[in-house]
Amino acid sequence: MESGLQKERARRFRSLHQGAPMLVLPNVWDAASAQVIEQVGFPAIATTSSGVATALGYEDGQRITREMLVEVLARITRVVNLPVTADIEAGFGNSIPDVLQTVREVMATGVVGINIEDSRKQPGSGLVDMSYQVELLTALRELASELDVPFVINARVDVFLLKIGEPEDRFEHAVRRANAYLQAGADCVYPIAHLDYDTIGRLVQAIDGPINIMGGRAGTTLAELERLGVARVSLAGTLMRSMLTHLRSVAVDVLEHGSFEKLNAEL
Amino acid sequence: MESGLQKERARRFRSLHQGAPMLVLPNVWDAASAQVIEQVGFPAIATTSSGVATALGYEDGQRITREMLVEVLARITRVVNLPVTADIEAGFGNSIPDVLQTVREVMATGVVGINIEDSRKQPGSGLVDMSYQVELLTALRELASELDVPFVINARVDVFLLKIGEPEDRFEHAVRRANAYLQAGADCVYPIAHLDYDTIGRLVQAIDGPINIMGGRAGTTLAELERLGVARVSLAGTLMRSMLTHLRSVAVDVLEHGSFEKLNAEL
Repeated sequence: MESGLQKERARRFRSLHQGAPMLVLPNVWDAASAQVIEQVGFPAIATTSSGVATALGYEDGQRITREMLVEVLARITRVVNLPVTADIEAGFGNSIPDVLQTVREVMATGVVGINIEDSRKQPGSGLVDMSYQVELLTALRELASELDVPFVINARVDVFLLKIGEPEDRFEHAVRRANAYLQAGADCVYPIAHLDYDTIGRLVQAIDGPINIMGGRAGTTLAELERLGVARVSLAGTLMRSMLTHLRSVAVDVLEHGSFEKLNAEL
Repeated sequence: MESGLQKERARRFRSLHQGAPMLVLPNVWDAASAQVIEQVGFPAIATTSSGVATALGYEDGQRITREMLVEVLARITRVVNLPVTADIEAGFGNSIPDVLQTVREVMATGVVGINIEDSRKQPGSGLVDMSYQVELLTALRELASELDVPFVINARVDVFLLKIGEPEDRFEHAVRRANAYLQAGADCVYPIAHLDYDTIGRLVQAIDGPINIMGGRAGTTLAELERLGVARVSLAGTLMRSMLTHLRSVAVDVLEHGSFEKLNAEL
Protein backbone atom coordinates (compact mmCIF):
# COMPACT_ATOMS: atom_id res chain seq x y z
CA MET A 1 0.00 0.00 0.00
CA GLU A 2 1.17 3.52 -0.83
CA SER A 3 2.50 5.03 2.43
CA GLY A 4 0.50 8.26 2.22
CA LEU A 5 -2.67 6.24 1.91
CA GLN A 6 -1.78 4.07 4.89
CA LYS A 7 -1.01 7.16 6.98
CA GLU A 8 -4.33 8.71 6.02
CA ARG A 9 -6.19 5.54 6.97
CA ALA A 10 -4.34 5.36 10.28
CA ARG A 11 -5.39 8.94 11.07
CA ARG A 12 -8.97 8.20 10.07
CA PHE A 13 -9.03 5.08 12.24
CA ARG A 14 -7.46 6.98 15.15
CA SER A 15 -10.10 9.70 14.96
CA LEU A 16 -12.88 7.09 15.20
CA HIS A 17 -11.77 6.50 18.80
CA GLN A 18 -12.59 10.10 19.79
CA GLY A 19 -16.07 11.22 20.74
CA ALA A 20 -19.40 10.09 19.36
CA PRO A 21 -20.48 7.90 17.75
CA MET A 22 -18.91 4.95 19.51
CA LEU A 23 -16.71 2.86 17.21
CA VAL A 24 -18.21 -0.56 16.46
CA LEU A 25 -15.78 -3.05 14.96
CA PRO A 26 -16.96 -6.28 13.35
CA ASN A 27 -14.20 -8.87 13.40
CA VAL A 28 -13.57 -10.72 10.16
CA TRP A 29 -11.50 -13.78 9.26
CA ASP A 30 -10.91 -13.64 5.51
CA ALA A 31 -11.19 -11.40 2.48
CA ALA A 32 -14.81 -12.33 1.76
CA SER A 33 -16.06 -11.48 5.25
CA ALA A 34 -14.11 -8.20 5.13
CA GLN A 35 -15.75 -7.27 1.84
CA VAL A 36 -19.23 -7.90 3.22
CA ILE A 37 -18.52 -5.72 6.27
CA GLU A 38 -17.25 -2.91 4.05
CA GLN A 39 -20.34 -3.15 1.82
CA VAL A 40 -22.68 -3.04 4.82
CA GLY A 41 -21.22 0.33 5.79
CA PHE A 42 -19.08 -0.02 8.89
CA PRO A 43 -16.32 2.62 9.16
CA ALA A 44 -13.49 0.19 9.94
CA ILE A 45 -12.71 -3.53 10.17
CA ALA A 46 -10.96 -5.65 12.78
CA THR A 47 -9.72 -9.21 12.45
CA THR A 48 -10.41 -12.01 14.94
CA SER A 49 -7.52 -14.30 15.77
CA SER A 50 -9.89 -17.13 16.68
CA GLY A 51 -11.81 -16.71 13.42
CA VAL A 52 -8.65 -16.53 11.32
CA ALA A 53 -7.29 -19.65 13.01
CA THR A 54 -10.59 -21.52 12.62
CA ALA A 55 -10.86 -20.66 8.93
CA LEU A 56 -7.36 -22.03 8.40
CA GLY A 57 -8.08 -25.16 10.42
CA TYR A 58 -6.15 -24.31 13.58
CA GLU A 59 -6.93 -23.71 17.24
CA ASP A 60 -6.71 -20.16 18.51
CA GLY A 61 -3.63 -19.08 20.45
CA GLN A 62 -0.77 -18.56 18.00
CA ARG A 63 -0.98 -22.06 16.55
CA ILE A 64 -0.86 -20.53 13.08
CA THR A 65 2.48 -19.07 12.01
CA ARG A 66 3.42 -15.41 11.68
CA GLU A 67 3.60 -16.00 7.92
CA MET A 68 0.02 -17.29 7.82
CA LEU A 69 -1.19 -14.29 9.82
CA VAL A 70 0.55 -11.85 7.49
CA GLU A 71 -0.80 -13.64 4.43
CA VAL A 72 -4.40 -13.40 5.67
CA LEU A 73 -4.00 -9.71 6.52
CA ALA A 74 -2.54 -8.97 3.09
CA ARG A 75 -5.49 -10.68 1.41
CA ILE A 76 -7.91 -8.56 3.42
CA THR A 77 -6.19 -5.21 2.88
CA ARG A 78 -5.88 -5.99 -0.84
CA VAL A 79 -9.66 -5.90 -1.28
CA VAL A 80 -11.04 -3.27 1.13
CA ASN A 81 -10.62 0.48 1.38
CA LEU A 82 -11.54 0.76 5.04
CA PRO A 83 -8.99 0.97 7.84
CA VAL A 84 -8.14 -2.56 9.08
CA THR A 85 -6.85 -3.36 12.55
CA ALA A 86 -5.17 -6.70 13.17
CA ASP A 87 -5.51 -9.04 16.12
CA ILE A 88 -1.89 -10.16 16.52
CA GLU A 89 -2.48 -12.03 19.81
CA ALA A 90 0.72 -11.82 21.90
CA GLY A 91 2.77 -10.70 18.89
CA PHE A 92 4.07 -14.01 17.52
CA GLY A 93 7.46 -13.60 19.14
CA ASN A 94 9.38 -14.51 22.27
CA SER A 95 11.05 -11.15 22.83
CA ILE A 96 10.36 -7.49 22.18
CA PRO A 97 12.53 -7.42 19.01
CA ASP A 98 10.67 -10.51 17.78
CA VAL A 99 7.29 -8.87 18.32
CA LEU A 100 8.50 -5.68 16.63
CA GLN A 101 9.48 -7.77 13.62
CA THR A 102 5.94 -9.19 13.53
CA VAL A 103 4.48 -5.69 13.64
CA ARG A 104 6.78 -4.49 10.84
CA GLU A 105 5.50 -7.32 8.65
CA VAL A 106 1.91 -6.71 9.70
CA MET A 107 2.19 -2.99 8.93
CA ALA A 108 3.67 -3.80 5.52
CA THR A 109 0.27 -5.31 4.59
CA GLY A 110 -1.37 -1.90 5.03
CA VAL A 111 -3.19 -2.44 8.31
CA VAL A 112 -3.40 0.59 10.58
CA GLY A 113 -3.92 -0.84 14.05
CA ILE A 114 -3.10 -3.79 16.26
CA ASN A 115 -4.49 -5.60 19.29
CA ILE A 116 -1.71 -6.83 21.57
CA GLU A 117 -2.28 -9.12 24.56
CA ASP A 118 -0.63 -9.07 27.97
CA SER A 119 -0.82 -12.82 28.50
CA ARG A 120 1.30 -15.69 27.25
CA LYS A 121 0.04 -18.30 24.91
CA GLN A 122 1.47 -21.26 26.81
CA PRO A 123 -1.22 -23.27 28.62
CA GLY A 124 -1.53 -22.41 32.29
CA SER A 125 0.65 -19.35 32.06
CA GLY A 126 -0.85 -16.09 33.16
CA LEU A 127 -0.13 -12.44 32.51
CA VAL A 128 3.27 -11.10 31.55
CA ASP A 129 4.92 -8.72 34.00
CA MET A 130 3.39 -5.29 33.74
CA SER A 131 6.88 -3.83 33.30
CA TYR A 132 7.49 -6.05 30.28
CA GLN A 133 4.22 -5.00 28.67
CA VAL A 134 4.97 -1.32 29.34
CA GLU A 135 8.36 -1.73 27.71
CA LEU A 136 6.76 -3.50 24.73
CA LEU A 137 4.11 -0.81 24.28
CA THR A 138 6.75 1.92 24.47
CA ALA A 139 8.75 0.14 21.79
CA LEU A 140 5.63 -0.24 19.61
CA ARG A 141 4.90 3.49 19.93
CA GLU A 142 8.49 4.21 18.84
CA LEU A 143 8.07 1.82 15.92
CA ALA A 144 5.03 3.80 14.78
CA SER A 145 7.17 6.96 14.72
CA GLU A 146 9.99 5.18 12.92
CA LEU A 147 7.60 3.80 10.28
CA ASP A 148 5.83 7.16 10.14
CA VAL A 149 2.46 5.40 10.36
CA PRO A 150 0.38 6.51 13.36
CA PHE A 151 -1.12 3.08 13.85
CA VAL A 152 -3.54 2.53 16.70
CA ILE A 153 -2.36 0.33 19.56
CA ASN A 154 -5.19 -1.41 21.38
CA ALA A 155 -3.67 -2.97 24.50
CA ARG A 156 -5.46 -6.01 25.84
CA VAL A 157 -5.80 -6.37 29.61
CA ASP A 158 -6.42 -10.07 30.25
CA VAL A 159 -6.98 -9.90 34.02
CA PHE A 160 -10.71 -10.72 33.80
CA LEU A 161 -10.44 -13.18 30.92
CA LEU A 162 -7.83 -15.33 32.69
CA LYS A 163 -9.41 -14.85 36.13
CA ILE A 164 -6.15 -13.61 37.62
CA GLY A 165 -6.00 -13.47 41.44
CA GLU A 166 -9.03 -13.10 43.67
CA PRO A 167 -12.26 -11.83 42.09
CA GLU A 168 -12.38 -8.80 44.37
CA ASP A 169 -8.87 -7.72 43.34
CA ARG A 170 -9.37 -7.92 39.57
CA PHE A 171 -10.99 -4.56 39.00
CA GLU A 172 -8.16 -2.63 40.63
CA HIS A 173 -5.53 -4.83 38.95
CA ALA A 174 -7.08 -4.27 35.53
CA VAL A 175 -7.31 -0.52 36.05
CA ARG A 176 -3.68 -0.33 37.17
CA ARG A 177 -2.51 -2.17 34.07
CA ALA A 178 -4.81 -0.24 31.75
CA ASN A 179 -3.56 3.12 32.93
CA ALA A 180 0.07 2.00 32.75
CA TYR A 181 -0.46 0.81 29.18
CA LEU A 182 -2.08 4.10 28.15
CA GLN A 183 0.80 5.96 29.78
CA ALA A 184 3.28 3.83 27.81
CA GLY A 185 1.67 4.71 24.49
CA ALA A 186 -1.38 2.55 24.00
CA ASP A 187 -4.23 4.42 22.30
CA CYS A 188 -6.99 2.28 23.72
CA VAL A 189 -7.20 -0.52 26.29
CA TYR A 190 -9.25 -3.67 26.03
CA PRO A 191 -10.22 -5.49 29.25
CA ILE A 192 -11.58 -8.46 27.34
CA ALA A 193 -14.26 -10.64 29.02
CA HIS A 194 -18.02 -10.78 29.35
CA LEU A 195 -18.42 -7.88 31.79
CA ASP A 196 -21.65 -6.59 33.28
CA TYR A 197 -22.80 -3.03 32.64
CA ASP A 198 -21.91 -1.95 36.18
CA THR A 199 -18.28 -3.10 35.85
CA ILE A 200 -18.02 -1.52 32.41
CA GLY A 201 -19.27 1.81 33.73
CA ARG A 202 -16.80 1.75 36.60
CA LEU A 203 -13.93 0.83 34.25
CA VAL A 204 -14.76 3.80 32.02
CA GLN A 205 -14.62 6.08 35.06
CA ALA A 206 -11.36 4.66 36.42
CA ILE A 207 -9.38 4.36 33.20
CA ASP A 208 -7.75 7.50 31.77
CA GLY A 209 -8.35 6.87 28.09
CA PRO A 210 -10.46 5.13 25.45
CA ILE A 211 -11.75 1.71 26.38
CA ASN A 212 -12.65 -1.22 24.14
CA ILE A 213 -15.39 -3.61 25.25
CA MET A 214 -16.30 -7.01 23.85
CA GLY A 215 -19.85 -6.87 22.50
CA GLY A 216 -22.18 -9.34 20.93
CA ARG A 217 -23.95 -10.93 23.86
CA ALA A 218 -27.69 -11.49 23.59
CA GLY A 219 -29.64 -9.10 25.81
CA THR A 220 -27.07 -6.30 25.60
CA THR A 221 -27.18 -3.35 23.21
CA LEU A 222 -24.74 -0.96 21.64
CA ALA A 223 -26.83 1.97 22.86
CA GLU A 224 -26.22 1.05 26.49
CA LEU A 225 -22.48 0.59 25.95
CA GLU A 226 -22.32 3.99 24.31
CA ARG A 227 -24.25 5.57 27.17
CA LEU A 228 -21.66 4.14 29.58
CA GLY A 229 -18.87 5.95 27.74
CA VAL A 230 -17.29 3.00 25.94
CA ALA A 231 -15.12 4.20 23.02
CA ARG A 232 -14.95 1.03 20.97
CA VAL A 233 -16.82 -2.26 20.81
CA SER A 234 -15.48 -5.41 19.17
CA LEU A 235 -17.67 -8.32 18.18
CA ALA A 236 -14.69 -10.68 18.62
CA GLY A 237 -15.40 -14.23 17.46
CA THR A 238 -19.19 -13.85 17.48
CA LEU A 239 -19.67 -13.24 13.73
CA MET A 240 -17.58 -16.25 12.78
CA ARG A 241 -19.42 -18.46 15.26
CA SER A 242 -22.75 -17.23 13.90
CA MET A 243 -21.62 -18.10 10.38
CA LEU A 244 -20.61 -21.62 11.34
CA THR A 245 -23.89 -22.15 13.20
CA HIS A 246 -25.72 -21.05 10.06
CA LEU A 247 -23.65 -23.38 7.87
CA ARG A 248 -24.36 -26.29 10.19
CA SER A 249 -28.09 -25.56 10.16
CA VAL A 250 -28.26 -25.33 6.37
CA ALA A 251 -26.17 -28.48 5.93
CA VAL A 252 -28.36 -30.45 8.35
CA ASP A 253 -31.45 -29.35 6.41
CA VAL A 254 -29.90 -30.69 3.19
CA LEU A 255 -28.66 -33.94 4.73
CA GLU A 256 -31.64 -34.85 6.87
CA HIS A 257 -34.52 -33.46 4.83
CA GLY A 258 -33.10 -33.40 1.31
CA SER A 259 -34.30 -29.81 1.25
CA PHE A 260 -32.83 -26.58 -0.09
CA GLU A 261 -35.24 -24.32 1.82
CA LYS A 262 -32.88 -23.08 4.55
CA LEU A 263 -30.16 -22.79 1.94
CA ASN A 264 -32.29 -20.33 0.01
CA ALA A 265 -33.97 -18.56 2.92
CA GLU A 266 -33.74 -14.78 2.81
CA LEU A 267 -32.60 -13.73 6.24
CA MET B 1 -0.98 -38.18 3.74
CA GLU B 2 0.10 -41.80 3.95
CA SER B 3 -0.44 -43.32 0.49
CA GLY B 4 -2.39 -46.36 1.70
CA LEU B 5 -4.84 -44.05 3.43
CA GLN B 6 -5.26 -41.90 0.33
CA LYS B 7 -5.88 -45.00 -1.79
CA GLU B 8 -8.47 -46.26 0.68
CA ARG B 9 -10.26 -42.88 0.66
CA ALA B 10 -10.20 -42.80 -3.14
CA ARG B 11 -11.82 -46.25 -3.24
CA ARG B 12 -14.40 -45.21 -0.68
CA PHE B 13 -15.20 -42.04 -2.63
CA ARG B 14 -15.40 -44.01 -5.88
CA SER B 15 -17.87 -46.48 -4.37
CA LEU B 16 -20.17 -43.61 -3.33
CA HIS B 17 -20.86 -43.07 -7.05
CA GLN B 18 -22.39 -46.54 -7.44
CA GLY B 19 -26.01 -47.27 -6.60
CA ALA B 20 -28.15 -45.86 -3.80
CA PRO B 21 -28.11 -43.62 -1.94
CA MET B 22 -27.30 -40.80 -4.33
CA LEU B 23 -24.06 -38.99 -3.38
CA VAL B 24 -24.69 -35.46 -2.10
CA LEU B 25 -21.62 -33.24 -2.00
CA PRO B 26 -21.58 -29.96 -0.10
CA ASN B 27 -18.95 -27.63 -1.52
CA VAL B 28 -16.66 -25.94 0.99
CA TRP B 29 -14.13 -23.13 0.73
CA ASP B 30 -11.85 -23.40 3.74
CA ALA B 31 -10.87 -25.68 6.60
CA ALA B 32 -13.60 -24.40 8.92
CA SER B 33 -16.44 -25.05 6.47
CA ALA B 34 -14.98 -28.50 5.72
CA GLN B 35 -14.93 -29.36 9.42
CA VAL B 36 -18.57 -28.37 9.84
CA ILE B 37 -19.61 -30.53 6.89
CA GLU B 38 -17.73 -33.50 8.29
CA GLN B 39 -19.34 -33.04 11.72
CA VAL B 40 -22.82 -32.84 10.20
CA GLY B 41 -22.34 -36.31 8.74
CA PHE B 42 -21.90 -36.08 4.97
CA PRO B 43 -19.89 -38.96 3.48
CA ALA B 44 -17.53 -36.80 1.40
CA ILE B 45 -16.61 -33.17 0.73
CA ALA B 46 -16.13 -31.16 -2.45
CA THR B 47 -14.55 -27.75 -2.84
CA THR B 48 -16.07 -24.85 -4.75
CA SER B 49 -13.74 -22.82 -6.92
CA SER B 50 -15.96 -19.76 -6.65
CA GLY B 51 -16.12 -20.05 -2.86
CA VAL B 52 -12.38 -20.59 -2.52
CA ALA B 53 -11.70 -17.58 -4.72
CA THR B 54 -14.22 -15.41 -2.85
CA ALA B 55 -12.77 -16.32 0.54
CA LEU B 56 -9.33 -15.30 -0.71
CA GLY B 57 -10.63 -12.06 -2.22
CA TYR B 58 -10.55 -13.03 -5.90
CA GLU B 59 -13.04 -13.47 -8.70
CA ASP B 60 -13.79 -17.01 -9.84
CA GLY B 61 -12.12 -18.30 -13.00
CA GLN B 62 -8.50 -19.19 -12.19
CA ARG B 63 -7.66 -15.71 -10.90
CA ILE B 64 -6.02 -17.32 -7.89
CA THR B 65 -2.74 -19.12 -8.52
CA ARG B 66 -2.13 -22.85 -8.58
CA GLU B 67 -0.12 -22.39 -5.37
CA MET B 68 -3.06 -20.76 -3.62
CA LEU B 69 -5.37 -23.58 -4.72
CA VAL B 70 -2.96 -26.22 -3.45
CA GLU B 71 -2.51 -24.38 -0.15
CA VAL B 72 -6.26 -24.25 0.49
CA LEU B 73 -6.67 -27.94 -0.37
CA ALA B 74 -3.84 -28.89 1.98
CA ARG B 75 -5.46 -26.95 4.80
CA ILE B 76 -8.73 -28.78 4.25
CA THR B 77 -7.28 -32.29 3.98
CA ARG B 78 -5.17 -31.64 7.09
CA VAL B 79 -8.28 -31.39 9.28
CA VAL B 80 -10.87 -33.79 7.88
CA ASN B 81 -10.96 -37.57 7.55
CA LEU B 82 -13.56 -37.67 4.77
CA PRO B 83 -12.68 -38.04 1.10
CA VAL B 84 -12.20 -34.59 -0.46
CA THR B 85 -12.65 -33.84 -4.15
CA ALA B 86 -11.15 -30.66 -5.57
CA ASP B 87 -12.64 -28.23 -8.06
CA ILE B 88 -9.56 -27.47 -10.16
CA GLU B 89 -11.48 -25.46 -12.81
CA ALA B 90 -9.70 -25.94 -16.16
CA GLY B 91 -6.58 -27.30 -14.49
CA PHE B 92 -4.48 -24.17 -13.99
CA GLY B 93 -2.34 -24.88 -17.03
CA ASN B 94 -2.07 -24.09 -20.70
CA SER B 95 -1.19 -27.56 -21.90
CA ILE B 96 -1.82 -31.16 -20.92
CA PRO B 97 1.58 -31.50 -19.18
CA ASP B 98 0.83 -28.28 -17.28
CA VAL B 99 -2.53 -29.58 -16.11
CA LEU B 100 -0.98 -32.91 -15.13
CA GLN B 101 1.52 -30.99 -12.99
CA THR B 102 -1.40 -29.24 -11.25
CA VAL B 103 -3.05 -32.57 -10.59
CA ARG B 104 0.17 -34.06 -9.20
CA GLU B 105 0.38 -31.18 -6.73
CA VAL B 106 -3.32 -31.41 -5.92
CA MET B 107 -3.06 -35.15 -5.29
CA ALA B 108 -0.07 -34.58 -3.00
CA THR B 109 -2.43 -32.76 -0.62
CA GLY B 110 -4.40 -35.98 -0.13
CA VAL B 111 -7.52 -35.21 -2.15
CA VAL B 112 -9.07 -38.15 -3.97
CA GLY B 113 -11.05 -36.58 -6.78
CA ILE B 114 -11.09 -33.68 -9.21
CA ASN B 115 -13.58 -31.68 -11.25
CA ILE B 116 -12.12 -30.68 -14.60
CA GLU B 117 -13.84 -28.28 -17.01
CA ASP B 118 -14.03 -28.41 -20.79
CA SER B 119 -14.11 -24.65 -21.26
CA ARG B 120 -11.39 -22.02 -21.26
CA LYS B 121 -11.10 -19.35 -18.65
CA GLN B 122 -10.53 -16.53 -21.09
CA PRO B 123 -13.54 -14.22 -21.43
CA GLY B 124 -15.63 -14.95 -24.46
CA SER B 125 -13.91 -18.19 -25.25
CA GLY B 126 -16.02 -21.28 -25.42
CA LEU B 127 -15.43 -24.98 -25.12
CA VAL B 128 -12.15 -26.67 -25.86
CA ASP B 129 -12.11 -29.15 -28.72
CA MET B 130 -13.64 -32.42 -27.68
CA SER B 131 -10.53 -34.21 -28.92
CA TYR B 132 -8.33 -32.11 -26.62
CA GLN B 133 -10.51 -32.93 -23.63
CA VAL B 134 -10.54 -36.62 -24.49
CA GLU B 135 -6.75 -36.57 -24.67
CA LEU B 136 -6.54 -34.73 -21.33
CA LEU B 137 -8.91 -37.15 -19.61
CA THR B 138 -6.96 -40.12 -20.98
CA ALA B 139 -3.76 -38.60 -19.60
CA LEU B 140 -5.41 -37.99 -16.21
CA ARG B 141 -6.55 -41.62 -16.07
CA GLU B 142 -2.96 -42.69 -16.82
CA LEU B 143 -1.71 -40.35 -14.10
CA ALA B 144 -4.02 -42.05 -11.59
CA SER B 145 -2.44 -45.39 -12.48
CA GLU B 146 1.05 -43.94 -12.31
CA LEU B 147 0.37 -42.40 -8.87
CA ASP B 148 -1.43 -45.60 -7.82
CA VAL B 149 -4.30 -43.51 -6.44
CA PRO B 150 -7.66 -44.36 -8.07
CA PHE B 151 -8.86 -40.76 -7.86
CA VAL B 152 -12.31 -39.92 -9.22
CA ILE B 153 -12.42 -37.78 -12.36
CA ASN B 154 -15.60 -35.74 -12.65
CA ALA B 155 -15.61 -34.27 -16.16
CA ARG B 156 -17.52 -31.03 -16.55
CA VAL B 157 -19.58 -30.56 -19.70
CA ASP B 158 -20.07 -26.81 -20.06
CA VAL B 159 -22.38 -26.84 -23.10
CA PHE B 160 -25.46 -25.67 -21.15
CA LEU B 161 -23.59 -23.31 -18.81
CA LEU B 162 -21.98 -21.40 -21.66
CA LYS B 163 -25.05 -21.64 -23.91
CA ILE B 164 -23.01 -23.15 -26.74
CA GLY B 165 -24.72 -23.20 -30.15
CA GLU B 166 -28.47 -23.23 -30.68
CA PRO B 167 -30.67 -24.25 -27.70
CA GLU B 168 -32.14 -27.19 -29.58
CA ASP B 169 -28.68 -28.61 -30.32
CA ARG B 170 -27.32 -28.45 -26.78
CA PHE B 171 -28.76 -31.65 -25.44
CA GLU B 172 -27.25 -33.81 -28.15
CA HIS B 173 -23.96 -31.92 -28.00
CA ALA B 174 -23.72 -32.40 -24.21
CA VAL B 175 -24.52 -36.10 -24.48
CA ARG B 176 -21.91 -36.59 -27.20
CA ARG B 177 -19.23 -34.95 -25.08
CA ALA B 178 -20.32 -36.69 -21.89
CA ASN B 179 -20.11 -40.13 -23.45
CA ALA B 180 -16.75 -39.38 -25.05
CA TYR B 181 -15.40 -38.23 -21.68
CA LEU B 182 -16.64 -41.37 -19.94
CA GLN B 183 -15.07 -43.47 -22.69
CA ALA B 184 -11.77 -41.63 -22.18
CA GLY B 185 -11.66 -42.43 -18.50
CA ALA B 186 -13.89 -39.98 -16.65
CA ASP B 187 -15.74 -41.63 -13.77
CA CYS B 188 -18.64 -39.19 -13.75
CA VAL B 189 -19.79 -36.32 -15.97
CA TYR B 190 -21.15 -32.99 -14.84
CA PRO B 191 -23.35 -31.02 -17.26
CA ILE B 192 -23.35 -27.97 -15.00
CA ALA B 193 -26.29 -25.53 -15.27
CA HIS B 194 -29.72 -25.01 -13.78
CA LEU B 195 -31.50 -27.81 -15.63
CA ASP B 196 -35.16 -28.74 -15.38
CA TYR B 197 -36.19 -32.20 -14.18
CA ASP B 198 -37.20 -33.26 -17.68
CA THR B 199 -33.77 -32.47 -19.15
CA ILE B 200 -32.04 -34.13 -16.20
CA GLY B 201 -34.09 -37.31 -16.69
CA ARG B 202 -33.29 -37.41 -20.40
CA LEU B 203 -29.59 -36.84 -19.72
CA VAL B 204 -29.52 -39.76 -17.28
CA GLN B 205 -31.07 -41.98 -19.97
CA ALA B 206 -28.75 -40.84 -22.76
CA ILE B 207 -25.44 -40.82 -20.89
CA ASP B 208 -23.65 -44.12 -20.33
CA GLY B 209 -22.36 -43.52 -16.81
CA PRO B 210 -22.77 -41.65 -13.54
CA ILE B 211 -24.01 -38.09 -13.85
CA ASN B 212 -23.44 -35.15 -11.50
CA ILE B 213 -26.15 -32.49 -11.23
CA MET B 214 -25.94 -29.04 -9.65
CA GLY B 215 -28.42 -28.88 -6.76
CA GLY B 216 -29.45 -26.24 -4.31
CA ARG B 217 -32.28 -24.43 -6.10
CA ALA B 218 -35.36 -23.53 -4.10
CA GLY B 219 -38.34 -25.66 -5.06
CA THR B 220 -36.26 -28.67 -6.03
CA THR B 221 -35.48 -31.68 -3.81
CA LEU B 222 -32.83 -34.32 -3.54
CA ALA B 223 -35.50 -37.01 -3.54
CA GLU B 224 -36.63 -36.07 -7.04
CA LEU B 225 -33.04 -35.97 -8.36
CA GLU B 226 -32.46 -39.43 -6.91
CA ARG B 227 -35.66 -40.74 -8.48
CA LEU B 228 -34.43 -39.52 -11.87
CA GLY B 229 -31.27 -41.62 -11.52
CA VAL B 230 -28.75 -38.88 -10.77
CA ALA B 231 -25.59 -40.36 -9.22
CA ARG B 232 -24.15 -37.26 -7.59
CA VAL B 233 -25.40 -33.80 -6.63
CA SER B 234 -23.13 -30.82 -5.91
CA LEU B 235 -24.31 -27.75 -4.07
CA ALA B 236 -21.68 -25.65 -5.94
CA GLY B 237 -21.42 -22.09 -4.63
CA THR B 238 -24.78 -22.11 -2.84
CA LEU B 239 -23.47 -22.78 0.69
CA MET B 240 -20.90 -19.98 0.47
CA ARG B 241 -23.50 -17.56 -0.88
CA SER B 242 -25.87 -18.49 1.93
CA MET B 243 -23.11 -17.81 4.48
CA LEU B 244 -22.36 -14.39 3.03
CA THR B 245 -26.06 -13.51 2.96
CA HIS B 246 -26.28 -14.50 6.62
CA LEU B 247 -23.21 -12.43 7.51
CA ARG B 248 -24.66 -9.43 5.73
CA SER B 249 -27.97 -9.78 7.55
CA VAL B 250 -26.32 -10.08 10.97
CA ALA B 251 -23.99 -7.16 10.29
CA VAL B 252 -26.86 -4.93 9.15
CA ASP B 253 -28.75 -5.78 12.35
CA VAL B 254 -25.74 -4.68 14.42
CA LEU B 255 -25.07 -1.52 12.40
CA GLU B 256 -28.62 -0.29 11.90
CA HIS B 257 -30.30 -1.45 15.10
CA GLY B 258 -27.38 -1.72 17.53
CA SER B 259 -28.73 -5.18 18.25
CA PHE B 260 -27.11 -8.56 18.79
CA GLU B 261 -30.32 -10.53 18.32
CA LYS B 262 -29.70 -11.93 14.83
CA LEU B 263 -26.09 -12.53 15.84
CA ASN B 264 -27.28 -14.83 18.61
CA ALA B 265 -30.30 -16.35 16.90
CA GLU B 266 -30.41 -20.13 16.97
CA LEU B 267 -31.13 -21.19 13.45
